[in-house]
Amino acid sequence: MTTATLLRARAFAPGSVGNVGPGLDILGLAVSGAGDEVLVERLDASGVVVRDAGHRDLPTRADKNTAALAAAEVLRRAGSPVAGLAVSIRKGLPLAGGQGGSAASAVAAAVATNRLLGDPLDRLALLDACLAAEETVAGRHPDNVAPSLFGGIVLVRSLTPLDVVCLPVPAELRVVLAHPDQRLRTRDARAVLPHDVPLSVALTQAAQVAAMVAALATDDYGLLGRALEDGIAEPARAPLLPGFREAKAAALRAGALGASISGAGPTAFALVRGETIAQAVAAAMDAAYRSVGVVPQVRVAQVDRQGAREIR
Amino acid sequence: MTTATLLRARAFAPGSVGNVGPGLDILGLAVSGAGDEVLVERLDASGVVVRDAGHRDLPTRADKNTAALAAAEVLRRAGSPVAGLAVSIRKGLPLAGGQGGSAASAVAAAVATNRLLGDPLDRLALLDACLAAEETVAGRHPDNVAPSLFGGIVLVRSLTPLDVVCLPVPAELRVVLAHPDQRLRTRDARAVLPHDVPLSVALTQAAQVAAMVAALATDDYGLLGRALEDGIAEPARAPLLPGFREAKAAALRAGALGASISGAGPTAFALVRGETIAQAVAAAMDAAYRSVGVVPQVRVAQVDRQGAREIR
Repeated sequence: MTTATLLRARAFAPGSVGNVGPGLDILGLAVSGAGDEVLVERLDASGVVVRDAGHRDLPTRADKNTAALAAAEVLRRAGSPVAGLAVSIRKGLPLAGGQGGSAASAVAAAVATNRLLGDPLDRLALLDACLAAEETVAGRHPDNVAPSLFGGIVLVRSLTPLDVVCLPVPAELRVVLAHPDQRLRTRDARAVLPHDVPLSVALTQAAQVAAMVAALATDDYGLLGRALEDGIAEPARAPLLPGFREAKAAALRAGALGASISGAGPTAFALVRGETIAQAVAAAMDAAYRSVGVVPQVRVAQVDRQGAREIR
Repeated sequence: MTTATLLRARAFAPGSVGNVGPGLDILGLAVSGAGDEVLVERLDASGVVVRDAGHRDLPTRADKNTAALAAAEVLRRAGSPVAGLAVSIRKGLPLAGGQGGSAASAVAAAVATNRLLGDPLDRLALLDACLAAEETVAGRHPDNVAPSLFGGIVLVRSLTPLDVVCLPVPAELRVVLAHPDQRLRTRDARAVLPHDVPLSVALTQAAQVAAMVAALATDDYGLLGRALEDGIAEPARAPLLPGFREAKAAALRAGALGASISGAGPTAFALVRGETIAQAVAAAMDAAYRSVGVVPQVRVAQVDRQGAREIR
């Protein structure tokens, strides 16, 4: 551990698909392209302040802002002599979009703060700090925070103690994201989840997540698609998402391996093998949303294997 | 497909651990050593008869005997000109022991019958025939039938359509089986399972099964042990099994990666890395059962990678 501190540090954290198919709360993947950037600057005054929340709808109060909360967690856990920090956020991810924007802001802030302090915390400690920050705002749901921080596809085996498994990423895997012009608060999307599920549903869901892991380990794209079946969250949330069913059906017709809701929605995602089919799936999802009067933003991404990183 | 048929054929099918930890109904592994043997002999008379049930407590009626039922299923599906079969069973596995004895009898009968008919059915069709046979007696639970037939460690992703995934077997993996002097009918052990589970329990369980698959794919014995946590069946069934809790605790103290109930019980199993620790775990489980007045049969096995096979 070094105690050399910087005056400022900046980090980027990618967006992510949480709740990958059947992997509600336990399986997430980082997505290339858009992400959030956070600049932290050393203050002589004590505490963390939000200098720029990055969007007028995001809280400027440090105790409500995930980035500021994450920075404060890292500061506290590091036991650093640095008194205070100013946090400035540049949002690349949509708000309440289901692309892990809140998690990315927390992760970028944590990584930047850790860098500013001379990297006192390891990756698992950073994850724990981000989870604590997110918990205040949205509950302790690690399937966005973990992939945004680590990159790749991440299985969260346990929260207490923290135990995460980074899974292999098949080379030709593409992720099509379709973000309809809608916001869905995680809180509202969680409210429709059942409190209990039939045993048979639980076992089926477990088999699907396990099969996804097996598929990733063996580059078995077909199995990956067959296993991308969510019998719990998707049936509950689909009714909240105009155009989702049409977009999913269109994605599958266009050759997607599978499709579901990204995180708590409203973004839909499809997993696809290869760039060519991914482009066709993107066009099909776009057309499907428009056919029911929803205007989406659609893009083709890869899995971001790097995760959060400092920006110099 | 060949239509050349034999007059008789004999097959062996290994025992198995079903419901491996969190993998209730979906994850099973075949175990080396004891198994069931079935001889099928061609009859001119129509239908399947049980010539030797292998144990006085096993049904001699063909419509109640899993081996005879499996033979009949294969006969029917093969559309063979062979009219009838006589089935003779040699039981190597305990009755109602939780070591997949019923499944092994069905599998051995199916494999022998298929051989007798010139191998008209492929492995997946044989699996389906065995499941149909087992369903009549014990319900459609594939986590014993699939590993007994295929060998190795098998994940059942889907029953309809049938979709099974054979997982890698870490080289040093050992399975300690402790069979207390008790019979537990699968029906009774299933009756104590909950109809519904809290969502959080379902997600935790899914994460464990998925982590087990990741662990097997990467020879990560530590993760395999951490993931061997069953929050659904084991808590419900442990009270039916005198000595189980003591034996599990003793196994863990002796260095087992994890331990749980094999299938529906009463056999307990432990997963262990390496033969030396396995012997120590076996001794510890034996002593623990005896300390509460239960006499177990304990053995150290490997995963049987071959599965059911013809015996000439």
